Amino acid sequence: MVAETQIARFLAFADTLADAARAAILPHFRANAPAEAKQGSKHGFDPVTVADRDAEHSIRRLIDANFPEHGIVGEEFGEKASRSAFTWIVDPIDGTRAFLAGLPLWGVLIALAYEGKPIIGVIDQPYIGERFRGWPGGASLVARNGERPLRTRTCERLTEAVIATTDPKLFEPAEAAAFEQVRAAAKITRYGCDCYAYAMIALGSVDLVIESGLAPWDVAALVPVVEGAGGRVTDWRGAPIPNEWFVGATGRAQVAACGDARVCDEALIALRRSHAPRDS
Amino acid sequence: MVAETQIARFLAFADTLADAARAAILPHFRANAPAEAKQGSKHGFDPVTVADRDAEHSIRRLIDANFPEHGIVGEEFGEKASRSAFTWIVDPIDGTRAFLAGLPLWGVLIALAYEGKPIIGVIDQPYIGERFRGWPGGASLVARNGERPLRTRTCERLTEAVIATTDPKLFEPAEAAAFEQVRAAAKITRYGCDCYAYAMIALGSVDLVIESGLAPWDVAALVPVVEGAGGRVTDWRGAPIPNEWFVGATGRAQVAACGDARVCDEALIALRRSHAPRDS
Repeated sequence: MVAETQIARFLAFADTLADAARAAILPHFRANAPAEAKQGSKHGFDPVTVADRDAEHSIRRLIDANFPEHGIVGEEFGEKASRSAFTWIVDPIDGTRAFLAGLPLWGVLIALAYEGKPIIGVIDQPYIGERFRGWPGGASLVARNGERPLRTRTCERLTEAVIATTDPKLFEPAEAAAFEQVRAAAKITRYGCDCYAYAMIALGSVDLVIESGLAPWDVAALVPVVEGAGGRVTDWRGAPIPNEWFVGATGRAQVAACGDARVCDEALIALRRSHAPRDS
Repeated sequence: MVAETQIARFLAFADTLADAARAAILPHFRANAPAEAKQGSKHGFDPVTVADRDAEHSIRRLIDANFPEHGIVGEEFGEKASRSAFTWIVDPIDGTRAFLAGLPLWGVLIALAYEGKPIIGVIDQPYIGERFRGWPGGASLVARNGERPLRTRTCERLTEAVIATTDPKLFEPAEAAAFEQVRAAAKITRYGCDCYAYAMIALGSVDLVIESGLAPWDVAALVPVVEGAGGRVTDWRGAPIPNEWFVGATGRAQVAACGDARVCDEALIALRRSHAPRDS
């Protein structure tokens, strides 16, 4: 168990990390450097790559200086083994395609895992100035007009649900067929929101998010935010994402997140059929 | 011709209208009234309907008081015939599904048409606090940190283009096939941005937007913003949207908007085949 005073301290430190990421990333958002952006190379210094790396560097420096015994898992610079029960799991820019298109629906994802279980999560949208924070038993949105608690809404049936996914083209064929069943039943479907869709579950304006092919740094920060607001995050079989997957995992995850478990249960009837083991 | 001093006066008035719409709409955004929202009825007083109507009421009152001889075309309350060359064309909330999902990519659309031609356009995002404005020969973004000119970017080829559309499920089959060709060639595709995607063309972060089934109030405000920033708005045949369609039109339009005409020309090779007359 982690004491409440420790939670508060780590949450404040997660804010410090998110502030540092904001400062590193914002100058590059909508910076219109078409020459570099056009190269499209994985190794090219396009604006996203520069912002991504600068932000992860800043975050790692702060963790090393303040909690040298904590581990770090980051998208850009791999893993630093933990000499404690704590590991920070970081994705400086989740939603790079939204970032490239100038759309403010990308986010900075910061999580702290205790023995592999994400206990603190931050989804930060620097441009809008919104920070969704989750911890054991609670979640809040810090925005320009102050802080307010987050709470998922009730939604009894899939036919009443607002659902979201990142890109239907990214699913495997069996996954796409399962998703299509869910989509056809849902009231409204939105695409391309990445982490922001999970923030909307916590806010109570989206009911279900379905995604696949996710890495630990895509998922870790979302869990405390959604669950702290009263929601649920599972794989496509309805099982919790195992702690050991978040730190030192291999393989990608299929994730279903919801505000009201009844909507998840209904969607899982279709999704279960195309459930893939995470390590396949 | 409309004199420059008149343009400046109308542009300032369009800002006044957008301010009034902001005040009417913002209290309803993310207001989480699940009981009403769930009715889903066209006539039900869900939060979007209330916000939509309140905003259009405010806008119409202001136009009637300040320019009683101007016509009005609005989504919610139909047409008021013009006793002059001027008509305001208004959609208080473009992107109601984004609005319902809590995503801040909907917009207030306000246009002023002179003899049917949209000469002033405003795309306002009240929650983020962004206002994209266009007029003959120019465009700007007014945001929390001030005003800056808008300029589309160069993009020579579709394979380098960031493209957007609202929802691939809304196309007719022939349209969907044409869009799929364009999507397969493009570098990045984003969905569900409604008017915000056109603002991103003006900003220089999106290269092409393709949509169909649009009404005059969906399109009118976009034209001065995209064209004022150096871009182009046409139908799927490559022809300008005719002035007579914007005021008192019947039928829906297929629209292609781009920052660099070369990308549109390439996309139109596929789109032209599924061009439908606007009055069909």
